[in-house]
Amino acid sequence: MARNEFELITRYFENQAVNRKDVTLSIGDDCALLEVPAGCHLAVSTDSLVAGTHFLADADPALVAHKALASNISDLAAMGATPAWVSLALTMPEPDETWLSEFCRGFFALAEYYNIELIGGDTTKGPLSLTLTVQGFIPHGQALTRRGAKAGDWIYVTGNLGDSAAGLAVILGQENGLSSSLAETLVQRHYISQPRVLAGQALRGIASAALDISDGLISDLGHILKQSQVGAEIDVTKLPLSPELLQFAGHNVEQAQKLALTSGEEYELCFTVPEHNRGALDTALAHAGVKVTCIGQLVPALGVTLKNSDVELDWQLTGWDHFAHQNN
Amino acid sequence: MARNEFELITRYFENQAVNRKDVTLSIGDDCALLEVPAGCHLAVSTDSLVAGTHFLADADPALVAHKALASNISDLAAMGATPAWVSLALTMPEPDETWLSEFCRGFFALAEYYNIELIGGDTTKGPLSLTLTVQGFIPHGQALTRRGAKAGDWIYVTGNLGDSAAGLAVILGQENGLSSSLAETLVQRHYISQPRVLAGQALRGIASAALDISDGLISDLGHILKQSQVGAEIDVTKLPLSPELLQFAGHNVEQAQKLALTSGEEYELCFTVPEHNRGALDTALAHAGVKVTCIGQLVPALGVTLKNSDVELDWQLTGWDHFAHQNN
Repeated sequence: MARNEFELITRYFENQAVNRKDVTLSIGDDCALLEVPAGCHLAVSTDSLVAGTHFLADADPALVAHKALASNISDLAAMGATPAWVSLALTMPEPDETWLSEFCRGFFALAEYYNIELIGGDTTKGPLSLTLTVQGFIPHGQALTRRGAKAGDWIYVTGNLGDSAAGLAVILGQENGLSSSLAETLVQRHYISQPRVLAGQALRGIASAALDISDGLISDLGHILKQSQVGAEIDVTKLPLSPELLQFAGHNVEQAQKLALTSGEEYELCFTVPEHNRGALDTALAHAGVKVTCIGQLVPALGVTLKNSDVELDWQLTGWDHFAHQNN
Repeated sequence: MARNEFELITRYFENQAVNRKDVTLSIGDDCALLEVPAGCHLAVSTDSLVAGTHFLADADPALVAHKALASNISDLAAMGATPAWVSLALTMPEPDETWLSEFCRGFFALAEYYNIELIGGDTTKGPLSLTLTVQGFIPHGQALTRRGAKAGDWIYVTGNLGDSAAGLAVILGQENGLSSSLAETLVQRHYISQPRVLAGQALRGIASAALDISDGLISDLGHILKQSQVGAEIDVTKLPLSPELLQFAGHNVEQAQKLALTSGEEYELCFTVPEHNRGALDTALAHAGVKVTCIGQLVPALGVTLKNSDVELDWQLTGWDHFAHQNN
């Protein structure tokens, strides 16, 4: 008997360690049946990853799985939500058991870490791609949106910026002069982000606005500025750069800073904090164990001004735009 | 400035007539924020449609949109759920405004009919495909699953069966001898199903099991049989066949019956009803305004037996399996 899509789904996706009490009915019926806690909003986000656009078709399936799920969880983190469930739509040219098995290994490792249950999805034939919808909870009135920022608020980012773009350059073979250990580290940084779930939760009631950096800091910060109707001044000397990024840039600091401003798929959080909450921020983030860096301040005049300490810069930068890229 | 994915999303997907009170935050942030009614389960289903597998790349975008959304709503209908929200992940080779505009016309017409709000999604570059996640509500304990059927229960289907397969044959150019009006009618039947939302809701508390027919009656009924651990006897003379299907089959009734048993993407409901609920069924469905037909009965012995009135048939049939098809 021919192996069909049902068998594929059954074999690979029904065996998972996570078994949440709020999942009344999981994979195997027309719908999943789920329970949202009283007093909470449901937070929902959807992301697609397409071979040739977001990853190479021959990329390690476990890394692709991690990247897909981590980027989606990052959207929950950016709202301050607690992850709960994920649906997975997987399209592949042929049922490839080796690929599926490796993919599931990466997928379920991360899902288990965050106690996320796979509640359903679809498996279809076609060019390799995957779409995930993650869902989580957040108590009423505590979500971090993009529209609450005010002039005077301070701008922060978690982690370091720029490594994802450097890793992508290595993956695409655009950088051949690096040591193999440096190259490998940067590739891992591109694929293996850590969604800032604890940081997002810690920012509830403290940050005035937040989002995750998927299309580049400058591009994404623009969403907060537009929705909150403010501008920003960023001091590029404050941008958090990893030693590996500086090495990648041949210690050309300006080049590293430009990468940090535009690198997409970082999945770090960018958030704003009013002056009177800065003390609370330090306390809250000590518990989350995440490095945060203040890189600038919001101002009344719209637009973004880049400064090197007090000197204004006229750098021309563009964001990370999948429709403009040809990554394969 | 180059047109990027944000502009695309903004322009085409933020203008919708539906504006639900349970959507606190919709498109434009990292997540949508939603409110599930107290006392209700959240029902979630995901479906992908891929060009070349589920539709032809040059198919009318409005019909593709209808088919995608209707098939997904049909999963909610099969649980007895009330539709509420949808997320749309759209992958396309280039931003094509003509295509997007027609797609949105079909998509929002159907979404509006069922009062479904588009709450988010993703737009990416790649081979044409779309993945939808629909969500709806169902009061606790009232969901129609696949596992409650018992031997002795009667098997029903809504509407007619077989037209979708006949329409697909026309689309693929496998039938050239038909009148153009017949051909056109069958193509419409393939693309434009009506999700049985009211019927599904009417079946709460009456049906012992239910699902929608996406992979062919025989294949899908098998899920109920497997999960409920029963078998089925189907009288093929009871299968509801449209006049157009009989015309398509050159009035070869056996051929039409075989199509009815295997035709995928019908999006009619197949459900089972205990003897003592048959009276309630008639009353409930009178309000839903949907034709239903009793086509057989569940039996203790596993497997499916096909009969022509009392004569057992040895037809060999297989279900609709996307991995086995090469539709392009």
